[in-house]
Order: sequence, then C-alpha cells, then structure tokens
Amino acid sequence: MQIGDIAIGGDEFVVMAGPCAVESERQLLDTAESVARSGARILRGGAFKPRSSPYSFQGMGVEGLKILSKARELTGLAIVTEVMSETDVDIVAEYADIMQVGARSMENFSLLERLGTCGRPVLLKRGMTATLEDLLRSAQLIAASGNPDVILCERGIRTFETATRNTFDVAAVPVLKTVCHLPVIVDPSHAAGVRSLVPVLARAGVVVGADGLLVEVHPEPDKAVSDGEQSLTFAQFDSMMLDLEPYLSLRPNADRLYAAAGGLD
Amino acid sequence: MQIGDIAIGGDEFVVMAGPCAVESERQLLDTAESVARSGARILRGGAFKPRSSPYSFQGMGVEGLKILSKARELTGLAIVTEVMSETDVDIVAEYADIMQVGARSMENFSLLERLGTCGRPVLLKRGMTATLEDLLRSAQLIAASGNPDVILCERGIRTFETATRNTFDVAAVPVLKTVCHLPVIVDPSHAAGVRSLVPVLARAGVVVGADGLLVEVHPEPDKAVSDGEQSLTFAQFDSMMLDLEPYLSLRPNADRLYAAAGGLD
Amino acid sequence: MQIGDIAIGGDEFVVMAGPCAVESERQLLDTAESVARSGARILRGGAFKPRSSPYSFQGMGVEGLKILSKARELTGLAIVTEVMSETDVDIVAEYADIMQVGARSMENFSLLERLGTCGRPVLLKRGMTATLEDLLRSAQLIAASGNPDVILCERGIRTFETATRNTFDVAAVPVLKTVCHLPVIVDPSHAAGVRSLVPVLARAGVVVGADGLLVEVHPEPDKAVSDGEQSLTFAQFDSMMLDLEPYLSLRPNADRLYAAAGGLD
Amino acid sequence: MQIGDIAIGGDEFVVMAGPCAVESERQLLDTAESVARSGARILRGGAFKPRSSPYSFQGMGVEGLKILSKARELTGLAIVTEVMSETDVDIVAEYADIMQVGARSMENFSLLERLGTCGRPVLLKRGMTATLEDLLRSAQLIAASGNPDVILCERGIRTFETATRNTFDVAAVPVLKTVCHLPVIVDPSHAAGVRSLVPVLARAGVVVGADGLLVEVHPEPDKAVSDGEQSLTFAQFDSMMLDLEPYLSLRPNADRLYAAAGGLD
Repeated sequence: MQIGDIAIGGDEFVVMAGPCAVESERQLLDTAESVARSGARILRGGAFKPRSSPYSFQGMGVEGLKILSKARELTGLAIVTEVMSETDVDIVAEYADIMQVGARSMENFSLLERLGTCGRPVLLKRGMTATLEDLLRSAQLIAASGNPDVILCERGIRTFETATRNTFDVAAVPVLKTVCHLPVIVDPSHAAGVRSLVPVLARAGVVVGADGLLVEVHPEPDKAVSDGEQSLTFAQFDSMMLDLEPYLSLRPNADRLYAAAGGLD
Repeated sequence: MQIGDIAIGGDEFVVMAGPCAVESERQLLDTAESVARSGARILRGGAFKPRSSPYSFQGMGVEGLKILSKARELTGLAIVTEVMSETDVDIVAEYADIMQVGARSMENFSLLERLGTCGRPVLLKRGMTATLEDLLRSAQLIAASGNPDVILCERGIRTFETATRNTFDVAAVPVLKTVCHLPVIVDPSHAAGVRSLVPVLARAGVVVGADGLLVEVHPEPDKAVSDGEQSLTFAQFDSMMLDLEPYLSLRPNADRLYAAAGGLD
Repeated sequence: MQIGDIAIGGDEFVVMAGPCAVESERQLLDTAESVARSGARILRGGAFKPRSSPYSFQGMGVEGLKILSKARELTGLAIVTEVMSETDVDIVAEYADIMQVGARSMENFSLLERLGTCGRPVLLKRGMTATLEDLLRSAQLIAASGNPDVILCERGIRTFETATRNTFDVAAVPVLKTVCHLPVIVDPSHAAGVRSLVPVLARAGVVVGADGLLVEVHPEPDKAVSDGEQSLTFAQFDSMMLDLEPYLSLRPNADRLYAAAGGLD
Repeated sequence: MQIGDIAIGGDEFVVMAGPCAVESERQLLDTAESVARSGARILRGGAFKPRSSPYSFQGMGVEGLKILSKARELTGLAIVTEVMSETDVDIVAEYADIMQVGARSMENFSLLERLGTCGRPVLLKRGMTATLEDLLRSAQLIAASGNPDVILCERGIRTFETATRNTFDVAAVPVLKTVCHLPVIVDPSHAAGVRSLVPVLARAGVVVGADGLLVEVHPEPDKAVSDGEQSLTFAQFDSMMLDLEPYLSLRPNADRLYAAAGGLD
C-alpha cells in the first residue's frame, strides 16, 4: 500500500506519531518537526474528536485539518486523522492522506461503506470489544464498497484486567497476518494508558510482525486536552525510536514469521 | 415520557414487539395485528439494517418506513425503528414515533448529538461492551443536545460465556433506576439468542423493575431474513404475554423496589 | 434430593441464609433463630475461610463447626458450610448437612473427587470465570466419583462491568435446567456485592426457575468480619422473604418453564 | 533466585521445556535430551494431572516423578512439575526442583499456604481470570507462609476473543516487574493454544523483559495425551531457540526497561 513515497505493509516499519488532538498550530508544527526528526513518517492528530458531551472539546474541525496540511508541507510527513461522521468524509479526505476510523466507529457500517469511495487508504482501529473476525468483517465491508486499502490496527481490548487501560492483544498481529494480506499496525498508547509502558509494548509489536506503530506524542503531555497520561514527550519518543532500532533490524518479513517453529502446521 | 397515549416509565409496562426487519407489507401488517391483539403497544421493525456487507440485506429503507406507518394507521400501535446514520435522521423522524439507536451505534457521538434535535424520543440500546457508565454518558449527550426523552435498553453484554448469545445483565435495571430517572426496558431476544429463553428472561426483566420489553416476533421465524432463531412466533408471543400477566400485577413501582430489604442503605 | 425433611429440586423453594463466617456462638445462634423465623430452611456460615493472608481471619475451624451443629439442634435448620481443603473433608462432613465448594475451588479437581465419597450432598458454586460447561464438568466429576447429589449455584461472573461486584448471569438457571436434572440455586449476595440489590436479584432468581437461594445475613453487617456490605440485616431478610412470597406462589415447576413460549423448539 | 547452578530473575533467560504430561520413560528422556541440547535449562512435565473426570488420564503419579528424576540425572536439567493437592506436596517436593501451581489452583489458598514450608521455589501460574492484583496476593500468601521464592507466570487470560486459546497479556510482564521483585516468566503455549503462534509470542515475552519461558515440547505432538496441538516438535523447539537468540542478546536488564521512554514518570 503506497502513500506518497511511503509503502505500508512492506519492508519498511512505518511510525505514525503525534498528539491525540490538534490543539493549536504551534503545538502541531512543533510536534511534527520533532517526530519527523526522530524518524516518524506519518503525523497523527485529531481534528474531529469524539464529543461525549456537547460541552467537551470537539476538536478544531476544518481549522485543524488546515494545520495538519500545513505540517505536511513543512515536514513532508503524511497525515492520518480520524473521521467520525459520514458527513465529514469529503472534507477530511480533502486534507488527509489516511482516513482513521476510531475504535468506537468500527461497526458504524454506514461510515465504513461511505469510506469505500473516499479515495484514501483507511486506518481501521479494532473496537474495544471486537473479535478479530468482527474487525475483518468491517475491513471487508470497506473493501467490498470499493476501497481495498485498509490498514488494521490493534489497540487493546476490554477485559476484566484494570492494571492497563486495555489488554494489548499482541497475538492479534500474527493471527491477522495469517488470515489476510492487509497491513497491521499497533497502537501501544491506547493499550497501555500510561506512557511508561508505551515503549515496551511498541517493542512487542515490532517483534511479532507489525508493519507500523501509532503513538501519541505531545510537547507538554501534562497540559494535553486529552490522553495526556499516555502521551510521550518529544525526548521520550526519540528514546523509544532509538530503543526500537535493533529490534527493527531483526524485523521478520511476513514469510519467515511462523517459519521459526520449523514450518507452519 | 409520553408517546401519543402511551406513557413509558410510569405505571404501565410497555411491550414493543415485531420483526427484526421489515421484509414485506404482508409480513409486517400480519405481525402488527397479531402483537397488538396480544397486548403490545409499540411495533418494532427495522427499515435500515446494519450492512455488514454491501451484498447483505440493507433493509427496505423508506419503503419500509411507509409500511411501518401504514401498520400504525391500521392498528394504533406506535412505531419504533432504528436509525443508523446521521443522514437518515430526518426521514426516520418523519415516520417513527421512537428513534432506536442500536448497540453498535451507542458511541456514535455524531449520531447521538444529531438526535438531540430530532423531536422524537430515543430508545438507546446498551453497547455490547459498554459499562452502565458509558451508557449513561451517551444518554446524557442526547439530553444535553436538546432531547431529554431517552429510554435505556439492557440487551446483554459480551462475556466469555457462550451458552447464550450475550450475558443478560439483569442487575443493570435496578442499578440504572437508582442513578437516573429515565425509563429502562429490556430486550430478552438479543440477550438470549434463542427463542426458548426469551419468555423466562422477560419475566426476570419484569420483576427487577423494567418499564417495558423489546421483543422480536415473526410470522415464520425460520424464514426470517435475520434473527430468526431468537424470534417468537405469534402463538409464542401470545403465550408469553399471558405468562407475564401475574408478574405484571406484582410489578413494583420505582419507589418500593429496594424497600424490600427494609430500606436502602 | 433429600436433606433430612427438606427436598431440594422439587416443589419447595429452599432458602439458605446466614453469615459469611461463623464469628461467635452468639452471632450464629441469633442469626439462626432469626432466619428460621423468617422462613429459611438451611443455615449457612463459614467455619473455614479462604486465607488470602496468613494474618487474615481463617475462620473458627472445628470450633465453628460445633457452633453450627448447636444451631441445628436449637432451630432444626440444616447446615451448609464450605470445605476448602481435601484434608478437611472428613471433619466437615461430620458436622455439615451440605458441603459447600466455593467459586475459587470449582476446579480443585482433587477436592471434587474426594467429595465423591464424603456421603453428603455438595453445593457447587460456579467459578468467577467458569462457563456453564466448566461448571457441569465439575459436577460430573463429583458424580462420577460416587456422589450424584450436587446442587449447582449461580453467583455472578467476572466481566468488564464494575457497577456490581459480579455480573449475575440469570440465564444460567434456565440453561442449566435444560441440560441437566440437578437443582440450581442462586446467590444474589455475591453477585450484587451490595445489600440493596440482593432482594431484587433474588426475585429474578425465583421467576427464572431457581430451586433456592443462598443469601448472607448478619446481626450487624457493619461489624461483620467479611462481606458486610452485601449482608442483609435480620429485618431486611425478613422483608425480602415477605417480598418473595407472591413470586414464589407463581413459581414455575420445571416442566412448564419454557412452555411459556408455546413449546420448546 | 537460585536453583542449583541456575539463577532465575537475573541476567540469564531461563527456558523450561517439556511435555504437558509425563507419558513414559522413553518419551520423557528423549524430550529431556533434545530440549537440553537446544538450550533449555529446566525440564517441565506433569506427573499429577487435573482429573476432570475419574476416567481421564491422571498422570503417572510417583512413577512419573521418578522418571523426571532420572531425566535430571542424565541431562543435568532441573525439574519443574505441578502439584495439585496439599496431600501431594511432600512427595512432589522430594523429586522436584520447582513446584508448579497451575492456573486452576492459583486461589487454592490451603495449597499455597502449605507450599510456604515445602522448601522449594514455587512457579505460580496466573489464573485464567485473575487480575495481576489477585496473582500478587497469592504470591504474597506463599511468601508470608515462609517461602519467598516465587516465580510468576503469565499464561493468557480468558476474554471474549476466541481466535487464540487465551489472550496473552504481554503487558503483565512489565507491570509485574514494576510492582514487585519476583521473577516473571511467560507460557506462550497455553496463551496461543496452537503451536504456530508459540515462537512469535515467545519473542514478545523476551523483549518485554520476561526472565524466562515455559513451553510445551513433545516427541510426537499428534500422539500427545494432552495439549498436543500447542506442543512443539523437537525441531520446532530448536528453531525457536535459534530464532530467539538475537532478541536475547538485546534483552533488557530490569533497570533500563522503562528508561526507553527517557525516564519513568
């Protein structure tokens, strides 16, 4: 899957990083420059945010999309941003390189079908309680609606365990790789819920064969509008990227992943 | 909450019954007449169905809404039907008396916000993996967006147990009743997944204080387009209504529900 | 199943009540007299308690068994008490009428097998995370080891929902009744985790066909060594028993339970 | 923690391998020699098996322990084997180097307390539905009963996902490492449930900081009495060990594990 000069699902391990929400031009451009310098290829940032209350932050909307676009021009990073509503598909597609579908929207079939004709690759996050079969069905709906370019994303599931925000289902990566040919990335930020666990879960994602990483980074996590406790600082993100390097050099290609056991069943 | 001459959340226990999907005029009108005769006050039936594949049945759409409307005229039943997409809100509100939000849409915040101004009561189903806190937050979003008329619906949650389609969380009813003043109904059909368990779960719903019931009924369940195995026949629905009668006569009013233990903590 | 003059699994709905733990002769005898007067037939009370720390209360042990025995003499109540260890089976069987296996021991196969030859009926509680299939397998092990007298007990399962201590799986009762002929009782105290929900969950248990109830009662719940927040006072237990009466008069016999839907599939 | 010349929880990554059950001297000795050659330091093998039916295989018992002992003499491997019953603690401790507590026994408090004085390190497996807090409480009980040498083992938890036998909670390793100083190992065999996923989950365990691995190996998995589908052949185990080598060379020491993010919070 090709996004400009970035190939996802091939030899390169693609890192997508940025804040949960676009909060200001300064916040986003600073983040973009910093994560690009550390090795990210794609910038994440929400312009439309889940509005669980009409009084809560709704994201900067089109203004946010324009800031993302400006960041792309300045840094060369591609842009991934969430689309939450069918009625926003066209405007988001105008600015974004990849259309993100959040965990809560994974079974919004109307939205998925509409994304079949949006002309952009879709990053589909696993629902909090979705089986891998459910996730694949949603991916198939997008594909059958006209858009084969779907990237799957494991981001943790809801279980009885509360030590982490979600339970990171690391086995989802190899299972998905076995049954389909779509790229699979991991989001250690939402799985962990706390920043200290993000780098170590990222490592796990790398070695089980993920094609990339979606990670939250913020200039001042403690002041973030949302997800601050799971966002890395610039320095932490840079350290994580250095930490991942030797693991990336060992990164399995899809073919030999299960060959480790002396051959698949 | 008043829907025509039907008061929900008061002394009356309100039964909503009908097929999963509107399949034809004949199917719906026959069902409407039969469930009305057995004591239902509201007719359910999906005109817009979750399209998990572009090739699967998508519901009859506006044609289905018109059939529902015709059934209302003939039987006096009010109509509840699902709205799956923001773009359908206006057309559904034109025909429906109650707008249903399905379990998969419980956190489609754009849709919820749009329903704040639809001018119709909303029946909000609990998501498969939603905590009661999540459910209440979604209800609050609808209310804060301008529409205080929300009916909550327990329909089973996803757990490790597979003997039933979902695990019917019967305690949800009294818990919700304690923390808010919204009507709470139960959907034993989706909880059970098999018709033989529907009447017995309906009973449980009655005695824990539910304000009503949402139940699937079909003239020929074995030929139903969807959810046939959990749909009651006309005769089974009638038997269930008779079976519930003595329990309904014992139905607690909200005030004395927890008084049974000699007073609340 | 006959325990003295009490038949479990037949026409009578059998209520088992008492404190979580035997704490003193006074506490137990007072409770026994009170619950007997309110209509309980069996006295519960733990003499051996789960020792999650060597410093925590371990129960009164044999001394507790003797107090239970004395309560039986004075009130005519039968005794159910937990056995936690194979090495205690003989001594517990000497004093108890029913041997209780706790949720944490449901898959302690050595203990189960040993109970096959203990000469007493066994009350087998569902494990927190056990499927109904798991529960039945454990029951079968006891039966196959020589003891067919097993009473199954639904007491809530562990799910993501935290509004209640456990999720009361009310459908477990009819499902178990369909696939085996063992008596099935419910424990609303451990499901609810708070006393205000106990009577309403007890009602649900009655109407879905349970054969009895296991409920925690304490003279002064706020001073209880364990489970105080979910224990009823004497007055609350008495109110609950009065509240249940009309539901009990409607209690289905096993034969017509599913007939409500006009016949089983 | 020292077991002969093997230090667990330090610089060495300790691999424990062998069959689910000891089935014969030939089967065990062949396996022992093969896994030793591939780099395992400890031999696993059940002599006492969960008897979910009195007719099912119960393990070879003391005979099995003697075969394990013989394997130790011949190969120098240390022995880990499960103890299921308090009454077997002494005999198992006579032959084993490490006493294994299975997932089903994690809250068998009588057994745990008895292990406090068994004189052997204990390998404590996480219960299928146990939170990390539950696991730590059980470890503390063993410690408080006199035995500080407890090894914790993550082996997957029960969730709604059925694509794998259990959901491998890889984050459990760093979370446990943060809150206690006990060694933590992973069991990818029971998490995966199928052998093709075992090596890739083993990798994930290595890179998140586990101190070792518990893995099922059998000369002829298809003929195994139990767990055949998740057991590796000798050749597959050898391939896995080779595959792990470069990851092991990167293995973090506990100190710098979370430092990757530029410092802990």
